[in-house]
Amino acid sequence: MKAARLLEFGKPLVLENIPIPDIQSDEILVQVTACGVCRTDAELIDGYFLKYFDIPRPITPGHEITGVVSRIGQQASDAGLLQGDHVVVVPGWGDGTCRHCQVGNTQLCPNVRFPGFGPHGGFAEYLPVPARYLIKVPRELSFEHLAPLTDAGLTPYRGVKKLLNAGALGPDRLLGVFGMGGLGGYAVQYAKLLGGGVTIVAFDLDAEKLALAKGYGADFAVNLKDASKADIEAELQTLTGQKDLDAILDCVGAPDLLQLGFSLLGTSGHYVDVGLLGDRVDIPLFPRINREQTFYGSNWGNYIDLSEVMALAAAGKIRHTTTPIRFDQINETLDRLREGTLVGRAVVIF
Amino acid sequence: MKAARLLEFGKPLVLENIPIPDIQSDEILVQVTACGVCRTDAELIDGYFLKYFDIPRPITPGHEITGVVSRIGQQASDAGLLQGDHVVVVPGWGDGTCRHCQVGNTQLCPNVRFPGFGPHGGFAEYLPVPARYLIKVPRELSFEHLAPLTDAGLTPYRGVKKLLNAGALGPDRLLGVFGMGGLGGYAVQYAKLLGGGVTIVAFDLDAEKLALAKGYGADFAVNLKDASKADIEAELQTLTGQKDLDAILDCVGAPDLLQLGFSLLGTSGHYVDVGLLGDRVDIPLFPRINREQTFYGSNWGNYIDLSEVMALAAAGKIRHTTTPIRFDQINETLDRLREGTLVGRAVVIF
Amino acid sequence: MKAARLLEFGKPLVLENIPIPDIQSDEILVQVTACGVCRTDAELIDGYFLKYFDIPRPITPGHEITGVVSRIGQQASDAGLLQGDHVVVVPGWGDGTCRHCQVGNTQLCPNVRFPGFGPHGGFAEYLPVPARYLIKVPRELSFEHLAPLTDAGLTPYRGVKKLLNAGALGPDRLLGVFGMGGLGGYAVQYAKLLGGGVTIVAFDLDAEKLALAKGYGADFAVNLKDASKADIEAELQTLTGQKDLDAILDCVGAPDLLQLGFSLLGTSGHYVDVGLLGDRVDIPLFPRINREQTFYGSNWGNYIDLSEVMALAAAGKIRHTTTPIRFDQINETLDRLREGTLVGRAVVIF
Amino acid sequence: MKAARLLEFGKPLVLENIPIPDIQSDEILVQVTACGVCRTDAELIDGYFLKYFDIPRPITPGHEITGVVSRIGQQASDAGLLQGDHVVVVPGWGDGTCRHCQVGNTQLCPNVRFPGFGPHGGFAEYLPVPARYLIKVPRELSFEHLAPLTDAGLTPYRGVKKLLNAGALGPDRLLGVFGMGGLGGYAVQYAKLLGGGVTIVAFDLDAEKLALAKGYGADFAVNLKDASKADIEAELQTLTGQKDLDAILDCVGAPDLLQLGFSLLGTSGHYVDVGLLGDRVDIPLFPRINREQTFYGSNWGNYIDLSEVMALAAAGKIRHTTTPIRFDQINETLDRLREGTLVGRAVVIF
Repeated sequence: MKAARLLEFGKPLVLENIPIPDIQSDEILVQVTACGVCRTDAELIDGYFLKYFDIPRPITPGHEITGVVSRIGQQASDAGLLQGDHVVVVPGWGDGTCRHCQVGNTQLCPNVRFPGFGPHGGFAEYLPVPARYLIKVPRELSFEHLAPLTDAGLTPYRGVKKLLNAGALGPDRLLGVFGMGGLGGYAVQYAKLLGGGVTIVAFDLDAEKLALAKGYGADFAVNLKDASKADIEAELQTLTGQKDLDAILDCVGAPDLLQLGFSLLGTSGHYVDVGLLGDRVDIPLFPRINREQTFYGSNWGNYIDLSEVMALAAAGKIRHTTTPIRFDQINETLDRLREGTLVGRAVVIF
Repeated sequence: MKAARLLEFGKPLVLENIPIPDIQSDEILVQVTACGVCRTDAELIDGYFLKYFDIPRPITPGHEITGVVSRIGQQASDAGLLQGDHVVVVPGWGDGTCRHCQVGNTQLCPNVRFPGFGPHGGFAEYLPVPARYLIKVPRELSFEHLAPLTDAGLTPYRGVKKLLNAGALGPDRLLGVFGMGGLGGYAVQYAKLLGGGVTIVAFDLDAEKLALAKGYGADFAVNLKDASKADIEAELQTLTGQKDLDAILDCVGAPDLLQLGFSLLGTSGHYVDVGLLGDRVDIPLFPRINREQTFYGSNWGNYIDLSEVMALAAAGKIRHTTTPIRFDQINETLDRLREGTLVGRAVVIF
Repeated sequence: MKAARLLEFGKPLVLENIPIPDIQSDEILVQVTACGVCRTDAELIDGYFLKYFDIPRPITPGHEITGVVSRIGQQASDAGLLQGDHVVVVPGWGDGTCRHCQVGNTQLCPNVRFPGFGPHGGFAEYLPVPARYLIKVPRELSFEHLAPLTDAGLTPYRGVKKLLNAGALGPDRLLGVFGMGGLGGYAVQYAKLLGGGVTIVAFDLDAEKLALAKGYGADFAVNLKDASKADIEAELQTLTGQKDLDAILDCVGAPDLLQLGFSLLGTSGHYVDVGLLGDRVDIPLFPRINREQTFYGSNWGNYIDLSEVMALAAAGKIRHTTTPIRFDQINETLDRLREGTLVGRAVVIF
Repeated sequence: MKAARLLEFGKPLVLENIPIPDIQSDEILVQVTACGVCRTDAELIDGYFLKYFDIPRPITPGHEITGVVSRIGQQASDAGLLQGDHVVVVPGWGDGTCRHCQVGNTQLCPNVRFPGFGPHGGFAEYLPVPARYLIKVPRELSFEHLAPLTDAGLTPYRGVKKLLNAGALGPDRLLGVFGMGGLGGYAVQYAKLLGGGVTIVAFDLDAEKLALAKGYGADFAVNLKDASKADIEAELQTLTGQKDLDAILDCVGAPDLLQLGFSLLGTSGHYVDVGLLGDRVDIPLFPRINREQTFYGSNWGNYIDLSEVMALAAAGKIRHTTTPIRFDQINETLDRLREGTLVGRAVVIF
């Protein structure tokens, strides 16, 4: 089968032909029909994670995976899936026994395996998946749209739910969504769906992406390009009647944006970060205490989160900006993600 | 001034002329411009509350009150309100010191005073209100719409928030809203705004009210008239793919409907009652335990709740079904509420 | 092996010799060393559940099960358990895929199996258990004490946590614990451990049980025998300075006690029921709304709950009142539970 | 009256005689009987807050205030307080109308006034306090013990409650409490009272303070002096069986300790900071996301928090390490706080 593999960190993926993998008894072989291309793939290749983990090669990246059930392991036969069923792959496969798995957060398991960060991933025609990490989806949903829902469309969903559960949304609150790349467009839609009337301000450096965000329901858009903190406060005051934000969902995670974000965050404010563009939080301490703020790291999403996203998708409540690409365009697409010039999500269609 | 007063329980209100009331130093005299007529007014008059409270007469009923600032007490001058400002009246005036007041639930205060359940209420041209229980509203909002938002449009908002905070809503959940009278239409809209994609089923005995509910965003409507439990389960199964409800907001509170509701409520289900048509909960115990269900009484709403409702109203996110009536039509309107034949909310316009 | 089996509802258990059961590949054969005898066993035998479920016979009752790993199925070999390990059995075995299982509430699964309510239970020398429903425990803990911790000591733990999560406990709150039978003594201890200084009042009809409760940390004890509601309020006022309860944990579930409990429950009060002595809740509606109370059914406990109880037990933080009995004393012990004359928990020791 | 006043930042307080202040109609004149001396007083004097606020002089510091009701303003007469009553002063006086005040968080009000950070404070014989910010306390409680409960004993209480409400405590969790100065000893006690059996590890550089912590109920004590991260992990592993912490309550807030703390914090870990020794959080971002951690700033405490602390104190559940000092020892005591050599709390006794 075709597979795009990481043989050496810092080098382009190598497109090659390798054998179709075998499956364990509790696994299902999924024929990949579409796989999203994510900035995290570029970070993986570029070595971002090497200071934290030892990641043996070769790796087949690609973690936004949808496909068709191809072959079913013997113990997986009671999972309610049949050959030909359309499925999405839940990321973060846990050991099923740790404290985190016991409440469904398999992506936080100390023994977690992430498809696309090890030997098997979605930049290949087939991969084996434990049966319990597949969710069956209606046939009428497009694979091109399903693929990004497993990360770009899942990660901000979990982030928005953290804000919701913290009581940070609601009719009289002002939410900033940072970064209108692959995740931000979904974030805006979820804030609209779950926010109980929260006012949404989209932030980005790119006018085209901001226009898209308004189309997705952002009440206002603020362009950060060449804008000082004072400029932004003034613009917020004009647009919304208040110059600080009650909540932030940061889909970027860049050090200077984190600093800006915290400086804009009001009293009792909640800041959720799901972005990993940088790797540093460097902020004053006193305002966090004085304004009694909370900062949440949010890690991808679990089975329940993805089930809920799929329920929204099946109800036709999610819109997409995706671009189909061919398998042999993966490396050039990764370059565009590194540049930040891609609007919406590129999806490899097999 | 004109006032419709309860002089004797069980008798029609007496429309008379009485002096404009005086105000205390911390109060504001509100000139009432509109006041909703509520089934609870009929219950008050008919003696529903007498088994629980001793309520001295005369009473001026009317608790859905909006109006204009007319006169400002000396200590109330720093409340940010000016003569002529449009305001709504927060119900449930607490002592400000008890445990419930300390977290804003003034309507639960042991020393609470409710306008419309004592000497002053909204079925009169003026009433004194402590400054801290007034919320200023934009002039462009219609008084006819503002009035019901302080109870019919406030009570289900608190109820929906209880469900939201319990994690009972969301994209893959099924919510039943019972009763499409004055409160139900608002309940459906709030479930749409706050429910994160929850599927909403409206229940009533009246086809006209159910049609209204669908207009407000209910996904489905089920007519309870002559329907057995089995009929309803079959209809739910057909409409939604499941025959039990994940959550219920009951705007009626009738004994048989409570029994029906609990029998339809699924595992880990949440039942919020805001209705008071009857006064008995008589249900089997075992299914509550076995299905691990939760039942919440929800009492009107507080300042924060009403502020949020006002933010939604100001943003144009709430629709209304109201009928203006004249002051001299109050008694006949109360009769129509007793019969249950009123669609939407009747509002006295002064 | 020896087994006490329910062959006919309403008749004593039949003590007989049957073959040691086989295990599935993902199961572990547990040699039962001790099994608690619970009022629910009597209710099962007496047919309490027959109006809700069809329960095929023969049944081996006994659901408070501890023992030793005897044989390990092939797929269960990576569960971290070795022959001879001491274990307790998590009740409520789910299908692992439903919404409730996904967050760990396997006891709420629509396809749940409960040991002791079907072909296998703890009133026998051996039973097969899926590996994921066993928790390894330190060898120094006594089997006689471990057994009741899986229900009598687990169910009130979940109940107390519901109160805790609802914000119902704390230094200035008054908690009533109803029923000082098998569960109540544990309930009092958990309220002490988790309650942040909550004041605990134990209620029962039996002076001996109440004395035990005080030994476990109850601040006060109130004997309900021949006491009117007014008597109890007066006693509460004297003992604690307030006559209503802020929270209730009901380990009984009798209709008249539920009525009494709700009449004593204060504003914003929380009532958790874990008891099933009766099968009816019949209470006035209005005070639930007016005082904005919440009622929770709480169903046994899950893996996480039992892990936490085991952590407390391993730390020596739980005290026990147990009586060892022989296998041939099961039927007479069940009779004593029917009479309500048993103090503490009787445990069959194999 | 005697007053110790800050006339110039960076200089010792000036002890002088000034007139007894007047009171407003809604205020009560409190005769100060005791006032704790806090590291924050030193920070105020040393100019820590000047980069954030403009603070007009003269200032009378001292914010841990207890005393006796001396004179009652006319409108304050219905507050339930009589001349001679013993009271503690709730810090953080809000405007009563903002969103934060509406839920009781008056210390977060945009218009907040803090006693001890403006013209009136507890380093003087009298101060005026709005009646609603006084809590009456039993006469048998010692003023020397009451004073520190309004900050040293209040701030960590709110912090522990944040951990509790986040589900971060419980029988199988490991909590680190950083800093065994004025606040830490209380923090350990609250973790014991509210933690449901959480294992508590106290951290400090000072062996004497750590010994005190163990006396207050810390399960273990770790001396940070000259210890590397690896040393500490090894020590935790030996003491507790795990090398990362599930929760942290940081009573210090120093940059390097924050870095150490986050590096020790496990998956799904919660970090609450109440300390302000430094003013920088500078940590890697990726582990926050990957381990899905949450960081909370916690600001002092509100009326409800202090009421609960007072309920614990009245029940005799709080122990103290205090040292009485004379009014003329304030400046030297502040120096000892700057050096970090003070064990327990110094309290000015008038």
